[in-house]
Amino acid sequence: MIIHLKGDLAPEKIATLATAHEAIHFRSEDRDILVLSSKITSVPTALAPYVDQSFVMSSDIQLASKDYQSYKRNIKIRQDVLGGNTNHTMMMAGPCSIESWEQISQTAELLKSLNIKTLRAGCFKPRTSPYTFQGMGEEGLKMLVKVRETYDLNIITEVKDSSHVDLVIDHADIVQIGTKAMYDQSILRKCGKSTKPVLLKRGFGTTLQEFVQAAEFILSGGNPNVMLCERGIRTFENKTRFTLDLTGVAYLKEFTNLPVVVDPSHAMGYRYGIPDLTRAAVAMGIDGLLIETHPTPELAKSDAAQQLNFDEFTKMFHSLKPVAEAVGQKLI
Amino acid sequence: MIIHLKGDLAPEKIATLATAHEAIHFRSEDRDILVLSSKITSVPTALAPYVDQSFVMSSDIQLASKDYQSYKRNIKIRQDVLGGNTNHTMMMAGPCSIESWEQISQTAELLKSLNIKTLRAGCFKPRTSPYTFQGMGEEGLKMLVKVRETYDLNIITEVKDSSHVDLVIDHADIVQIGTKAMYDQSILRKCGKSTKPVLLKRGFGTTLQEFVQAAEFILSGGNPNVMLCERGIRTFENKTRFTLDLTGVAYLKEFTNLPVVVDPSHAMGYRYGIPDLTRAAVAMGIDGLLIETHPTPELAKSDAAQQLNFDEFTKMFHSLKPVAEAVGQKLI
Amino acid sequence: MIIHLKGDLAPEKIATLATAHEAIHFRSEDRDILVLSSKITSVPTALAPYVDQSFVMSSDIQLASKDYQSYKRNIKIRQDVLGGNTNHTMMMAGPCSIESWEQISQTAELLKSLNIKTLRAGCFKPRTSPYTFQGMGEEGLKMLVKVRETYDLNIITEVKDSSHVDLVIDHADIVQIGTKAMYDQSILRKCGKSTKPVLLKRGFGTTLQEFVQAAEFILSGGNPNVMLCERGIRTFENKTRFTLDLTGVAYLKEFTNLPVVVDPSHAMGYRYGIPDLTRAAVAMGIDGLLIETHPTPELAKSDAAQQLNFDEFTKMFHSLKPVAEAVGQKLI
Amino acid sequence: MIIHLKGDLAPEKIATLATAHEAIHFRSEDRDILVLSSKITSVPTALAPYVDQSFVMSSDIQLASKDYQSYKRNIKIRQDVLGGNTNHTMMMAGPCSIESWEQISQTAELLKSLNIKTLRAGCFKPRTSPYTFQGMGEEGLKMLVKVRETYDLNIITEVKDSSHVDLVIDHADIVQIGTKAMYDQSILRKCGKSTKPVLLKRGFGTTLQEFVQAAEFILSGGNPNVMLCERGIRTFENKTRFTLDLTGVAYLKEFTNLPVVVDPSHAMGYRYGIPDLTRAAVAMGIDGLLIETHPTPELAKSDAAQQLNFDEFTKMFHSLKPVAEAVGQKLI
Repeated sequence: MIIHLKGDLAPEKIATLATAHEAIHFRSEDRDILVLSSKITSVPTALAPYVDQSFVMSSDIQLASKDYQSYKRNIKIRQDVLGGNTNHTMMMAGPCSIESWEQISQTAELLKSLNIKTLRAGCFKPRTSPYTFQGMGEEGLKMLVKVRETYDLNIITEVKDSSHVDLVIDHADIVQIGTKAMYDQSILRKCGKSTKPVLLKRGFGTTLQEFVQAAEFILSGGNPNVMLCERGIRTFENKTRFTLDLTGVAYLKEFTNLPVVVDPSHAMGYRYGIPDLTRAAVAMGIDGLLIETHPTPELAKSDAAQQLNFDEFTKMFHSLKPVAEAVGQKLI
Repeated sequence: MIIHLKGDLAPEKIATLATAHEAIHFRSEDRDILVLSSKITSVPTALAPYVDQSFVMSSDIQLASKDYQSYKRNIKIRQDVLGGNTNHTMMMAGPCSIESWEQISQTAELLKSLNIKTLRAGCFKPRTSPYTFQGMGEEGLKMLVKVRETYDLNIITEVKDSSHVDLVIDHADIVQIGTKAMYDQSILRKCGKSTKPVLLKRGFGTTLQEFVQAAEFILSGGNPNVMLCERGIRTFENKTRFTLDLTGVAYLKEFTNLPVVVDPSHAMGYRYGIPDLTRAAVAMGIDGLLIETHPTPELAKSDAAQQLNFDEFTKMFHSLKPVAEAVGQKLI
Repeated sequence: MIIHLKGDLAPEKIATLATAHEAIHFRSEDRDILVLSSKITSVPTALAPYVDQSFVMSSDIQLASKDYQSYKRNIKIRQDVLGGNTNHTMMMAGPCSIESWEQISQTAELLKSLNIKTLRAGCFKPRTSPYTFQGMGEEGLKMLVKVRETYDLNIITEVKDSSHVDLVIDHADIVQIGTKAMYDQSILRKCGKSTKPVLLKRGFGTTLQEFVQAAEFILSGGNPNVMLCERGIRTFENKTRFTLDLTGVAYLKEFTNLPVVVDPSHAMGYRYGIPDLTRAAVAMGIDGLLIETHPTPELAKSDAAQQLNFDEFTKMFHSLKPVAEAVGQKLI
Repeated sequence: MIIHLKGDLAPEKIATLATAHEAIHFRSEDRDILVLSSKITSVPTALAPYVDQSFVMSSDIQLASKDYQSYKRNIKIRQDVLGGNTNHTMMMAGPCSIESWEQISQTAELLKSLNIKTLRAGCFKPRTSPYTFQGMGEEGLKMLVKVRETYDLNIITEVKDSSHVDLVIDHADIVQIGTKAMYDQSILRKCGKSTKPVLLKRGFGTTLQEFVQAAEFILSGGNPNVMLCERGIRTFENKTRFTLDLTGVAYLKEFTNLPVVVDPSHAMGYRYGIPDLTRAAVAMGIDGLLIETHPTPELAKSDAAQQLNFDEFTKMFHSLKPVAEAVGQKLI
C-alpha cells in the first residue's frame, strides 16, 4: 500500500509512523510518501489521521504499478524528454566499450550527422572472465564528458558495481545498470538517493516480477526517473545469443508506469538480425532503443560480433523512421 | 549433400544409387533429387557419372538451407501466393476451435469485410488434458469446406495425429502441424507425400535446428511447400503464456529459404499484448500471420483469454497496414 | 471429480449419465468409473443416486492424484512387480537401438549374468533429422521377442507414432512412449485401451502438470499400469545434453500415485556423469531405472556418446546395490 | 595459459612481464604465477627464459581446470578439511536468516547434538523486493561470532554486496557469495585478496562456464580456497522453486579441481522434497551440503516454506550416513 501523507507533518513524526508501520519513507515532489507492505489493503487505523491519499496494490509491484499511477512517467534527460505522452522513441547508440578518443569522436560525429541525441559507451565492463578486457574505467568516463561538451550529446554509461556508482551519477546523463548488476542493492540504493535518470537492464535470468521489484528499490529511495530495458533472456535456444522477450515488453507496457527501452544488440548477438529486431521493437511504440555501433566492429575489444558498422547503422536508422511514424511515434 | 541427378536415369537405377549411398530420393519439378548425409562434402566417385548438379551443406539443414537455394521459396495457396519476392504478408485469422456454423460464418463475414483471404479454425484439438473439449473433428472440417465455398476463403486447419492427416490434406488449403505434433514423423511423412502447403509450427521446447530438421522430413518427401511458424517458446517467464522468439525469426530468415509465419496469439496468451506483438512481427517483413479472433471470446471453448473480439481485431488490422508499408510489404 | 458408480447399472444408463455430465467413463477392476471436470467439487444432484464413492480433486490431476488414491500403484511385469510397497528399483538396461542379433544377445547375456530382469532396446527411432538411422522397425521387434524367449527377460521398447502402437503392445512387456511422442493422443488413447504396462517419458519441454495430464489420457482409457519417467528437460545449460530434473521427481513422488522411473543416460548425454546420476536417482528411492549400455558404444548407430560399455555398466551396477540398501530399496 | 615463474625473479621484473603479456599475476604457496589468455597455446618466446612450468588449457577455464591441476583441491576450515582425498561430505546447516540469539543458539545446540561442525545463517539478505525483511546485518554477524565461541562451530554466512565483504571475511570461517551476487566483481576481487575459504553459489541463470569463470576471478586474485555450490537453476518448470542441476554437478566434478557443494533447500523451495534430494546429492559423493533448518519454520522471516524443522532435519540427517558410506564418503 502506498500512502501520501498530509503536508504538515514534522520529520520526527513521519519517522515514527514509518517505523511503527514497517514502511519505507521517501520524499518526492514536495510530498512525503510511505510504502507499506503490498499485502495491506486498507489504511491502518493508527495511520488514518495523517493520510492524504492511499493506493491499494494488486501485486507486489507498487510505485511502478498502474494501480498507483495510471499514466506513463516521463523522464527529462538534459534538453530531451521521453516517456509520458511525448510519443518519443529515443535512439541511444554507440560502441560496447569506449576504447579511444578517435573511436568515440567518430561515433559522436555519426550520431550528430543523423540528428541522434544520445551516445552510449561502456567504461566499466562487467566481463564474465577475468582474462579479458575490463574497460577503460574512469579515464573512459572523462572522455565521455568531453564528448558531451564537444558534441552536445547525452551520455549513457554502465555501472558494474557500487564502487563507482557515485562517479557515474556525477558524470553521466543516464546511469545504466547492467544485466549482471540488476540485483545489486548497493547500486540500486545509491541510484535511489539521486534523481539522475536510470536505465535498469533486466537480468538475463530474471523474471518480469523480479525486474520490476529491482526498479522499486530505486523508486522507493526517492528517484522517480527509472526506465526498464529488455535486452534478451536466457533460454534453451543457443543459435542466437539470448532471446529478446518482446512478450515481456508487452507485459511491462500494460502493467507498469515506467518507460520501456529495448536493446536488440545484446539479445541477438549477431549483426545480421539486429535491423529486423530493432524495427520490431519500434513497431511496439517503445520509448527508447539501445544499439551498439562501432567504426570498425571487427577490431572491437568486446562484443565484436554484434556491433553494426556505421554504414549498417545508418541504413538501419533511416529505415526506422517510417516504422515509428506508422505507430504514431517520433524517433529522436 | 544434395544432388540433382541427370534427367535420363531409369527408376531402378535411381533406386540402386539411393540405396548404395544411403540417400533419400524424391522427385520435384520433373527432377530426381538425392539427399545424402550432410557430412558428405564431395560427390562420391561412384555417383559422379549421374550427377547434374551438387550442393554442399554447412550444417545439418539441407533442402531448407540457403546453401541449397539462396532465394526464398514461394507458395501458392489457391489464388494467392506468399513468399518468394511477393512481399506479401498473409493474414490468417479465425477462432481457436470451430464451434458452430453461426460462429464460423460470422468470422468469415468479418474477414471478407476486411478483404482478408484466409480463415483459420481448429477441428482436431490437441488438448493437454483429457477432461477438456477435444474439438468438432470431421464435422468441423466439413463446415470449413462449406465456408470456403460460401465465402471464397482459403482454409487452414490443424492436424494433431496421423489418423486424420489424409482427411485434412484432402479438404484444407493449408495443413497446419501443431506445436505438440511437430516431431510426429508419421504426420511429417504423410505431408511429404502431398504437395499441399504445410504450415509447420515450432514445438515450444524445440530448438531452431530441430525445427528446421522437422521441415526437412516434409521437403525430402517431395513437398516443397513448407512454411515455418514461430508461436512462442517455453522459458522461465510465466507472466506471459510463452515467449515469442523473434530473435529466432531473424535466424530463420537469414539461414533458411522457407517463408516464415508468426503466431503472436499463442505466445502472448492474453489479449492485451497481441496488437503490439503483431505489429512487431509485421515490421520484421514476415510472410504470414496467424491470429485468433472469435465473435464472443468469453464464451470460447478453448483459449478464451487470447482471442480478440471482432472490434479489437478490426482495429488492430487497420493499424497493421501502415507498418507493413513502412517495411515494403503488402498485407493480404 | 472422480465417481465410482454403484455396481448394478446397465451400460446404456452409464452411457447416458456420462454424456449428461460430460464425463469420461471406463471400467477398471469390475468397477465403472466416471471422471468429470476437475473443477466440480460436489456430486451433481442428478448423479447422486448412482454414486458409490466420490473423490474431489485439488488440481487438474485426477486419476494419478493422491487425492484419489493415496498409496502408490503397483505394476506387474510378467513375473516381476514394481511400485506399491515392493521397495523394488527395477533396472532396465540395454542399447539405444537394436542393431543386430549379436549385439542384443551379448547384451542379454550381460544382464543375465548380473541377475537383471529387464532389457531395453529401441526398434522405431524418433530421430530428429530424416538423414540419420531410423531403426530396424518390426524386424527388431521380432528379435526382441526371441530375446525374451531365449533369455527369459522382460522387454521394453519405444513407440514413436501410432502406426505401430498395436504391434508393440502385442509384443513388448512394457510399452515406452518417448519424449517426443508424449503429447500424441492417438498413442495415448491406444495405450489406454490396453492393460499393458506403459512407461511414459516426460517431454523435454513439458511441465510436470502436462506430463501427468498425458498419463491421465492413458489412465482414463482404463489402463491403470502407467509409470512416469523423468529423462531430462531442456534448459539454458548446454554443457550437458539435458538437465535431469530430480526436483521434479520429488514432486511426482509427493503428489502422484504412479511409480517413477529415471533415465540418467539421455539427460547427461555423456558417459562420464551417468554413474553418479544413477546413484543419485537410486538414493531417492525411485521405482525404476532406464540405462543405455552397448557392447561397443563407439560403433553405435545412435546416442554413441552416452552408452556405457559393459565394463562401465557392470562396475556401476555393483555400486548401486549398497545405495539402494541404504534407502531401504532392493535393486532387481 | 598458466605459467609458474622461476623462483628468483624480482617483483619489478614480474610486473613488467605481466604487463607485456597482458597476464594476471598472483602469488600462491611461495610461487609466482602468471595467467595469460586461455587462447595462447605455446609459451611466448620473450617469456620462455623465466618459465619454470607451463600449462595449456583446453577451454576458458584455467586455474579451476583439471588441465592445470588434475587432483581435487582441499580446503581447511578451522580444524576441519574438505575436498582433496578426504572423502568428507561436510554438512552446513542452519536458518536462512539469523533472527535472534534464542533462535541461533537452539540451532547450534541441535548441530552439536548431531556432531555437525558447521552452522549457516544469513545476516545480509539479498531480498528481491525492497518491502520485505532485509536481515540483521552486522548485529547478526556478531551473534554468529559468539555462537562460534560458545559452541565451537564453523560459521558460514553470505555477502550480498561489496560494502560488507571485508567485515564478513574478518568474522566468518567461510564467506558465502550468493546466487544474485555471483557476477559482482568487486566482491569476487575482494575475496581473491584474502585466503578465507569462499563458497561461491551458482547464479540461477548462469551457465556452468560462467560459474567457473566467476571462480577464476577469486582464484586469480591468489585465493586457492574456493568451493562451487549448485543451488538450482531457473527453468520453465514452476511447480518447484528452481531445478537442482545435478547433471551440472557431474560436469563440475569431471572438469574442475574445486570441491562441490549442493544446496537442495533453495532448489526445491518446499520442505517435502528436501530429504530425497539431499540423499541424491550425497550419493554423488559431493564435498558439502548446505541445508536450511529453523526451530519454528512457520515463523521464519524468510524462506519459511523450505526450512526443515528440527525433527525433520534430525530424521533426515540420520538417513544420510548410510548413503554416504555406500559411496565411500564420511559425513562430517
